[in-house]
Amino acid sequence: MLTNIVKNELKRIVGADNASFSKEDLLCYSYDATNSLHLPEAVVFPATAEEISLILKMANAEGFPVIPRGAGTGFSGGSLPVEGGVVISTERMKAVIEIDPDNLTAIAEPGVVTWEFQQEVEKLGLFYPPDPSSLKFSTIGGNIAECAGGPRAVKYGVTKDYVLGLEVVLPTGEIINTGVRTAKGVVGYDITKLMVGSEGTLGIVTKATLKLLPLPETIKTMLAIFPDLKDAAKAVSGIIRAKVIPSTLELIDSVCIKCVEEYAQVGLPQAEAVLLIEVDGSFDTVDKDSEVVKRICAGNGSTEVRIANDKKEVKDLWKARRAISASLFRVKPNKINEDIVVPRSAIPELIAGLQEIGKKRNLLIAGFGHAGDGNIHVNIMYDKKDPKESKEAQEAVVDVFGLTIKLGGTLSGEHGVGITKAPYLKMELTEASIDAMKRIKAAFDPKGILNPGKIFPKADKAQADRLKEPV
Amino acid sequence: MLTNIVKNELKRIVGADNASFSKEDLLCYSYDATNSLHLPEAVVFPATAEEISLILKMANAEGFPVIPRGAGTGFSGGSLPVEGGVVISTERMKAVIEIDPDNLTAIAEPGVVTWEFQQEVEKLGLFYPPDPSSLKFSTIGGNIAECAGGPRAVKYGVTKDYVLGLEVVLPTGEIINTGVRTAKGVVGYDITKLMVGSEGTLGIVTKATLKLLPLPETIKTMLAIFPDLKDAAKAVSGIIRAKVIPSTLELIDSVCIKCVEEYAQVGLPQAEAVLLIEVDGSFDTVDKDSEVVKRICAGNGSTEVRIANDKKEVKDLWKARRAISASLFRVKPNKINEDIVVPRSAIPELIAGLQEIGKKRNLLIAGFGHAGDGNIHVNIMYDKKDPKESKEAQEAVVDVFGLTIKLGGTLSGEHGVGITKAPYLKMELTEASIDAMKRIKAAFDPKGILNPGKIFPKADKAQADRLKEPV
Repeated sequence: MLTNIVKNELKRIVGADNASFSKEDLLCYSYDATNSLHLPEAVVFPATAEEISLILKMANAEGFPVIPRGAGTGFSGGSLPVEGGVVISTERMKAVIEIDPDNLTAIAEPGVVTWEFQQEVEKLGLFYPPDPSSLKFSTIGGNIAECAGGPRAVKYGVTKDYVLGLEVVLPTGEIINTGVRTAKGVVGYDITKLMVGSEGTLGIVTKATLKLLPLPETIKTMLAIFPDLKDAAKAVSGIIRAKVIPSTLELIDSVCIKCVEEYAQVGLPQAEAVLLIEVDGSFDTVDKDSEVVKRICAGNGSTEVRIANDKKEVKDLWKARRAISASLFRVKPNKINEDIVVPRSAIPELIAGLQEIGKKRNLLIAGFGHAGDGNIHVNIMYDKKDPKESKEAQEAVVDVFGLTIKLGGTLSGEHGVGITKAPYLKMELTEASIDAMKRIKAAFDPKGILNPGKIFPKADKAQADRLKEPV
Repeated sequence: MLTNIVKNELKRIVGADNASFSKEDLLCYSYDATNSLHLPEAVVFPATAEEISLILKMANAEGFPVIPRGAGTGFSGGSLPVEGGVVISTERMKAVIEIDPDNLTAIAEPGVVTWEFQQEVEKLGLFYPPDPSSLKFSTIGGNIAECAGGPRAVKYGVTKDYVLGLEVVLPTGEIINTGVRTAKGVVGYDITKLMVGSEGTLGIVTKATLKLLPLPETIKTMLAIFPDLKDAAKAVSGIIRAKVIPSTLELIDSVCIKCVEEYAQVGLPQAEAVLLIEVDGSFDTVDKDSEVVKRICAGNGSTEVRIANDKKEVKDLWKARRAISASLFRVKPNKINEDIVVPRSAIPELIAGLQEIGKKRNLLIAGFGHAGDGNIHVNIMYDKKDPKESKEAQEAVVDVFGLTIKLGGTLSGEHGVGITKAPYLKMELTEASIDAMKRIKAAFDPKGILNPGKIFPKADKAQADRLKEPV
């Protein structure tokens, strides 16, 4: 429980208007996309790194948790105040401080919405590729904390590939600058990349120097239709093997096609699978690459490759793609959405394995996502009110993770561990790896006040033993 | 001093043929490109991570230093056994374990020579971009330890951008696997990137999973001649501002041109500066981009842009570029070579500043290098036998670093800190940053046995005070 002294001090630091302790406000900062609810004891809206530093110093002295929060769109619980404490919302820190076309860099505060940032840089013919589905709401700071990805990762990589340097407040309150404004820089350890994807457990980002690219000259959007899901999966590898790296290469299975079509009516064909493919670059590269893509799809059993002819057709295709996640609730009221990754050549095996798991557990498992980089969103559909189905769904998660690890993959491509994947961490990492990470956490946050309860599994021997052997 | 028990145990671990304590052998492992000499007490040639693990466990128990070593081509002393101890040479670990064209990845052992690795992947139409000047000798492991760069970094980034995952032996002997085989992966902290560029102080890499790209269709090599150095520097920014990112964009000043021409006679023109520029990609992109480059160079005062017509001409130009460093000894017997980086738009200011420092200190300062990413190799030429000139050269280093920091740059783009830049670390990093790094080091290596004496400056109050204020 926060004392009145702490509450008054919080008000003094950020200003009385920028701190709240009211139930209604706290409720607004108690959830994220995981659908769990954890009430904080206070929410504050600082404007500067210095204010955040003072709060963290007080947290160390008084022993209360501090939870940094962007827009709360995360799928793994990164911004949930699971142990109460003070939520630091970055929503007042939303300045794009600088866009520098000569050096292809920009400096932004953490609360800038990613999509708004992209609009700003695109006005200057520049390009910030990371594009998580949440981009119209989620923030640069949240994207950095979770190392957000998105469809364009297959060609352009993820958030960490665009973070050159940070101003960050360490859990103990020191404000440091990491990294450089340049592509190169090897002075000391790479704390920049250590911060990216650390899920708000090692520091609070207050400024980010981001790398930009020139905006590609043009993009071509295609939809390849497959009567067989496995053939679509094979085409994914085929395209890369043909040395074409599309800017997006998304797979959508029949369950998703059906749901999204009922939900949004954008004219998706009834098929076992479609690939949504974009190639970008100069006009002639795009022409050439799209021909290769068509050829490879046809050679792998595609019955048709449609090319979007105008902006509306492109928009409709993306509307369909982005509506999948929500539309799946038409099938079942609940779902577990896991963003596993496998080497892309293993996608056909993954697909076959998922179908087997679905059959064994009598569950509908829908798959869609960033096939180009092997990152498939596996949606296990179930009804929470049906205890047997709920139990099967939970066990299917372990099956899916076991299959993923067996195929040389990872449990999370872009959502992070947070609280949802913490119990499964040991399926992927050895004790020695987890221990090394815990030592990093302790080195930065000796009192464990910053975003506690995340990433590392709670001690639970029975569960640990159960998870030791991948299924 | 190593005891006989330790020596016997080393022989037992790696095999008697793979451990040496003889003066002649130790001498071979006592130096690198810094020209300093530090004798180890033993050199061992392990074949596996397990052998390295056993050595590190013994080092912790017995308290002797362990120094990992690739080819010893480093410029900052990373592989020097400055406190004696056991050198672990990776030269027996030189297998390319796998090249996977479907997933665009490869797995290599640390002792693989970078150039040989590149030849292997290029046979399959694949591409591993990092290209430090030392690439015909230096190793994947050494490149990872120092986060090696090279001319292609302007477009393709540096070693860290190509390391997806590692098998690494921690200083305490645990063998862990970090990262993934995929572009995405956010399970736990990014220990992979923390290891890259940590100069062999946080772990010994025993296997690396590396990212590959498709080999570009073609490359065009150009040489732009400038009567004014500052104009050449302006053209560098101009090219990027025109949204062309060349695969290399190298600046060579008149001192370097003169030296290299006397040394290698490759037909470089007598000019104040030249830019060596390559554009790569598809045939038509390269045609278009090279036209833009020509136009921008002409618009910035270039009197001629030559295009290499055949492989011999390309080879000659690169021969000239790679010979600069050695050829500079024609001017003076000694040099200090610093690989500072500034935002590329600040290169004209940097050039002007370097000329001023040279004038003030009555020294010849030659500049060349990767102007495209702002990474200029500043060579301060002097004669060690002349005490006044030596002193001026040492002080010029501080001037150059002060100028670099003032321009928003970093003290090292690709050589690392090691022992040569450790005394200047505080010019770039605050106490809080250095302290965070030291805590990481202590978390990984509590006894300080792995590559001690590197990166962090020795306590020296007088020196620290002197360096606090950038000149």
